[in-house]
Amino acid sequence: MTRKGLVLLNTGNGKGKSTAAFGQAMRAAGNGFKVCVIQFIKGNAQTGEAKAFARFSDNVEFHVKGSGFTWATEDKSEAVRAAREAFDFAKEKIRSDLYDMVVLDELTYLVTYEMVSEDEVIELVDNRPERLHLVITGRNASKKLIDAADLVTEMVEVKHPYQKGVKAQRGIEF
Amino acid sequence: MTRKGLVLLNTGNGKGKSTAAFGQAMRAAGNGFKVCVIQFIKGNAQTGEAKAFARFSDNVEFHVKGSGFTWATEDKSEAVRAAREAFDFAKEKIRSDLYDMVVLDELTYLVTYEMVSEDEVIELVDNRPERLHLVITGRNASKKLIDAADLVTEMVEVKHPYQKGVKAQRGIEF
Repeated sequence: MTRKGLVLLNTGNGKGKSTAAFGQAMRAAGNGFKVCVIQFIKGNAQTGEAKAFARFSDNVEFHVKGSGFTWATEDKSEAVRAAREAFDFAKEKIRSDLYDMVVLDELTYLVTYEMVSEDEVIELVDNRPERLHLVITGRNASKKLIDAADLVTEMVEVKHPYQKGVKAQRGIEF
Repeated sequence: MTRKGLVLLNTGNGKGKSTAAFGQAMRAAGNGFKVCVIQFIKGNAQTGEAKAFARFSDNVEFHVKGSGFTWATEDKSEAVRAAREAFDFAKEKIRSDLYDMVVLDELTYLVTYEMVSEDEVIELVDNRPERLHLVITGRNASKKLIDAADLVTEMVEVKHPYQKGVKAQRGIEF
């Protein structure tokens, strides 16, 4: 029997979307799965998660594709080009069928900011290798993406220390 | 300046409470923090998370205290005794001031099932070492616990594959 890979989607405006995706990747890696994590927006090689995944060099790949294409950039066409490149990279990784789990961290922003079309994302999800678990994070997941997913969790912000003026800190936020 | 440790609370009926806590622990460990993870209800040494944390043997302790005190047990007094012991263990770990982060996974159930009083939990949280980050998970967090926390996220179940009859599987749920 072919294992049926699930699509897990963490959305909502609260904390924990990416953190849970990283926990999921770590759990899968602990079980010996081959995992590929791709960060689309934030991230660099110095975050706690990057350093932590480095301990799984035998079965976790961690790719930061987030530098240079935020929507705040001055050159919108450059941003779109970089997003496109990151998405094509993810597509290649998914289609390679070399992994048991692929994490697409903050993928939804590419659709929200119209850098990649929703149809392309759905097409990629629906036509992934049979065994592949996909973990997708990001705010404002579309109805179509929710329909395409098997497990959807909304992270709702109940209380946030920024409200009290506490700054983001190492080990907690990154 | 003394770093002010935060209290992070993941509650709600959705997935990702424990997974995000484990991701948080991994991120902190990646940053070189000393971390102690205590699982109160579920868990054993064979889960993906247990095996993953074993890769951080230099700065993560992972303790499973979950065997033997579920509310489904036949001997309620034995369950209470075991829960009590697990809570005292956590208390000792927290007060030792040896850690930068302590994760109390599924702690809220001890209160829900009246194995440990809410006042004791709040007292422990409020009087933790100044620098200590606490990560607490579990459904039905009480209003007092929410008040005591700095960052509270509610994980809301939008869609779950169990609804379609898909069974829990290794690498995803454990």
